[in-house]
Amino acid sequence: MDKVRHLIEPLDFTTEELEDLFKLADKIIENPKEYAHECDGKILVTLFYEPSTRTRFSFEAAMIRLGGNVVGFSDPDSSSVTKGENVPDTIRIVSGYADVAVIRHPVEGAPKAASLFSRIPVINAGDGGHQHPTQTLTDLSTIRSKFGRLDNLKIGICGDLKYGRTTHSLVDAMSRYENNSFVFISPDELRMPAYICDELKQKGQTFKEARTIEEGISDVDVFYMTRVQRERFSDLDEYERVKDSCILTPEKMKLAKKDMIILHPLPRVNEIHPDIDDDARAYYFRQAERGMYIRMSLLLHLLNLAGDFCRNNTASEHEVVIAEGEAEMCKNPKCITANESALKHRYYVHRNGVKTCDYCGRIIE
Amino acid sequence: MDKVRHLIEPLDFTTEELEDLFKLADKIIENPKEYAHECDGKILVTLFYEPSTRTRFSFEAAMIRLGGNVVGFSDPDSSSVTKGENVPDTIRIVSGYADVAVIRHPVEGAPKAASLFSRIPVINAGDGGHQHPTQTLTDLSTIRSKFGRLDNLKIGICGDLKYGRTTHSLVDAMSRYENNSFVFISPDELRMPAYICDELKQKGQTFKEARTIEEGISDVDVFYMTRVQRERFSDLDEYERVKDSCILTPEKMKLAKKDMIILHPLPRVNEIHPDIDDDARAYYFRQAERGMYIRMSLLLHLLNLAGDFCRNNTASEHEVVIAEGEAEMCKNPKCITANESALKHRYYVHRNGVKTCDYCGRIIE
Amino acid sequence: MDKVRHLIEPLDFTTEELEDLFKLADKIIENPKEYAHECDGKILVTLFYEPSTRTRFSFEAAMIRLGGNVVGFSDPDSSSVTKGENVPDTIRIVSGYADVAVIRHPVEGAPKAASLFSRIPVINAGDGGHQHPTQTLTDLSTIRSKFGRLDNLKIGICGDLKYGRTTHSLVDAMSRYENNSFVFISPDELRMPAYICDELKQKGQTFKEARTIEEGISDVDVFYMTRVQRERFSDLDEYERVKDSCILTPEKMKLAKKDMIILHPLPRVNEIHPDIDDDARAYYFRQAERGMYIRMSLLLHLLNLAGDFCRNNTASEHEVVIAEGEAEMCKNPKCITANESALKHRYYVHRNGVKTCDYCGRIIE
Repeated sequence: MDKVRHLIEPLDFTTEELEDLFKLADKIIENPKEYAHECDGKILVTLFYEPSTRTRFSFEAAMIRLGGNVVGFSDPDSSSVTKGENVPDTIRIVSGYADVAVIRHPVEGAPKAASLFSRIPVINAGDGGHQHPTQTLTDLSTIRSKFGRLDNLKIGICGDLKYGRTTHSLVDAMSRYENNSFVFISPDELRMPAYICDELKQKGQTFKEARTIEEGISDVDVFYMTRVQRERFSDLDEYERVKDSCILTPEKMKLAKKDMIILHPLPRVNEIHPDIDDDARAYYFRQAERGMYIRMSLLLHLLNLAGDFCRNNTASEHEVVIAEGEAEMCKNPKCITANESALKHRYYVHRNGVKTCDYCGRIIE
Repeated sequence: MDKVRHLIEPLDFTTEELEDLFKLADKIIENPKEYAHECDGKILVTLFYEPSTRTRFSFEAAMIRLGGNVVGFSDPDSSSVTKGENVPDTIRIVSGYADVAVIRHPVEGAPKAASLFSRIPVINAGDGGHQHPTQTLTDLSTIRSKFGRLDNLKIGICGDLKYGRTTHSLVDAMSRYENNSFVFISPDELRMPAYICDELKQKGQTFKEARTIEEGISDVDVFYMTRVQRERFSDLDEYERVKDSCILTPEKMKLAKKDMIILHPLPRVNEIHPDIDDDARAYYFRQAERGMYIRMSLLLHLLNLAGDFCRNNTASEHEVVIAEGEAEMCKNPKCITANESALKHRYYVHRNGVKTCDYCGRIIE
Repeated sequence: MDKVRHLIEPLDFTTEELEDLFKLADKIIENPKEYAHECDGKILVTLFYEPSTRTRFSFEAAMIRLGGNVVGFSDPDSSSVTKGENVPDTIRIVSGYADVAVIRHPVEGAPKAASLFSRIPVINAGDGGHQHPTQTLTDLSTIRSKFGRLDNLKIGICGDLKYGRTTHSLVDAMSRYENNSFVFISPDELRMPAYICDELKQKGQTFKEARTIEEGISDVDVFYMTRVQRERFSDLDEYERVKDSCILTPEKMKLAKKDMIILHPLPRVNEIHPDIDDDARAYYFRQAERGMYIRMSLLLHLLNLAGDFCRNNTASEHEVVIAEGEAEMCKNPKCITANESALKHRYYVHRNGVKTCDYCGRIIE
């Protein structure tokens, strides 16, 4: 039997694998009809333990455009989850019905936990503040479609850099390519976390920080806007103070390069002025559309319908240790291990000796 | 590129276009298998910002019976709408995934707003108290299937004529055909609004009003029952007083013509006695069934799969003016313009000089 | 026109019919591709008036794997049910859209009520504390797949025997086969109801009762575990006292036969220790998977796509009497007749003179 591959974190795939993924997505865009029956008879199950309409639509449309079908729930309240079933049992049962599973979960590490008990590929469609890998793949593919490369680029990232997981993933992913540099633009309260900046320094990557769009936009190739999400704030006063400080306007766009592109994971609220929508540099809607094609390519790869992708590669595997005592257990209260006691704690030892939880990625102290 | 047509209001189609629509629906009823693959590979997206199971089922079954597929949400709570995305952005993104969109929204004019930013056909499946055009098309097609015509008929309309949008649309639609007359039967509190009666007078159409079913049922060809909906009332005492005054019983049916038909947009509560269900004149269940075939025909027309329908016609276009000052802006608090500030106010100037909002249809004062 | 058959209660099918059903399920498991287009163009409607993700997924996956499609709702809140439509009207309308209906309802007898007004087959997917027949069919098929027979077996049933409808149905169903015997294992508060024990005695069936797993597990062929469901208890203190008394552990499994099997309707909470999952006798996950194939077989039979099944048989029909006075009316407050006044009360007279409600099965006193 072929090994089952999953997509839990953006770096689960090597850059070579990503290149395969992006190339197939491009082929599908050029000739979608050729792929219209690749998944005939296959079933995608969408397990959305919290609502995320856009991500769900994108996956469902992707599967349908490949000829496949979808079952699922879009909301925990309309599921049996309320009866207290744990993630391992759910995925074990779903493995008997479906061919591939997409999981959105408010608890960090839940998709990872599912993958450990699954007989079918599991795709993480967002797990709390942890990861949202198909968004990152979409971001990369959109950049690549514009510039024909993923290296030697200057990437501005603006908005909520403290809580915004998509911005962290983008930095992680783009710093795997040569000679990229970053500009982090945010109000002081929402600065990029120190550990990410430290990692960049260790890798020898170039970055600078700015407080305003005017300060940072002038020479970037990619300007990645993010929303200041109210739900990430415990202090709503702080939210009110900072929410308007990073708004992109036509006026500020005059400072930007002529062939740069604006990206946004969407939904936006008011952080990009609607008059920019008609600017040729506004790439966020085509970015969203590209997300569907990336997911089509991903489904084909994980379902072993795109050549040798899943057979030959072990790049994403790292040595995992089962925790043996309290000291080695994850203390993150938002981690799936804090919510489901039957799971064994697992961690990964980095080269510098730091241990991170194999589910939620947090450092074990 | 072909022009994208939408269905926002019942009168968006000319009577000739409606005739095309009804004829195709009849053909599908006769030979459904011939149309079973017309929409292969197409995706319908159902955006139901408020639940309406019957309408949603009817559209979804219609698309599936044409070979197409469906993605969607059936409830605002299980959607990202809570994250504050506006209608234009939602439809722009959905345009990248799907081939046709059906929108149900509690806010008047929301489907119209969507259509202005959409690359795919938008169908209004009900927008608050404003319009529900596929119900009207279903009503007309059912009447036509019985009598072979839509003119020279006497139509009784009973129940909540004040708040019932389907009754207003039916009057609008039937008064486009020659020599129809109307009987409006309602308790005094729920009479047909004066402006509709005035319009009928201006057009030279015949109508009369009645307070009881006994008074009005005797010579009608069509008897259109509607529910007295509790949710339309601010004063629940008034609801209790009037709700039982318009109930159709087997006894009252004895006064009616032998070849008349009873219609109802459904769901009913108790306004039609169950013993009438076996009466050959009870057409409301086959009316509901016909709704699916009308929607199949509509989907084929809007998707350019039914001949020249969408290419040659401009009948539904009227000159729209962008509001330039406060005086020209819609003041309706239930209008989408009151809910989404990014939308430009738009209005339409009628022959008599009256301005109505292009979204919600209310007069601008 | 062929007679429409429904599945409302586990005993609606004769043992011969069940044998047909099980054989077809086995054939589908062996060669699923052969059945991948049997339901092309057919629509299953899932009417879930209360959520039950697993049952819904199983039916939806079953229909999709047969080439069919699904429309439905998974939650009463996102349906028009809130507008007060009754079950007969809903099924009448749905009959015009779909080819087969699956109904889950918190009110006992609701699927039966639907079947009386339906033009399409109705499948009961659980009606309150009354019945869940496809679970019982799944249980039987799983037992049959292991032992090659449904007679001459010893069946232990453990957990909530008082409220657990699946255990009652299993006893009913297995006592139709020769020479089976039962062991009922439960805390005193949750014993098998007296009327079921009485019936077994009348039929001359062997059973015994036990208070602990250790006492009852040693010589059974089938060990059927059930969850102690909190929602069945009015007294939560009682729940806390009894919930842990029936937990199956690896230690207790040492007392069991080597070729017995463990079944569970799932979801489980903690009543089966996770370490048992790797025991070859743990059959509950493959039982769940088999559920999908049983439902595929059931759909084919009810849709007249599996030979003469639905044409030749009248086994499930018993003489029903319409109630004529208060004394003959069902008094069960959880019965659909207590919730929808338009329904005629109907009862069935057993050989011993006892009358039971035709909807909810309760004795009329």
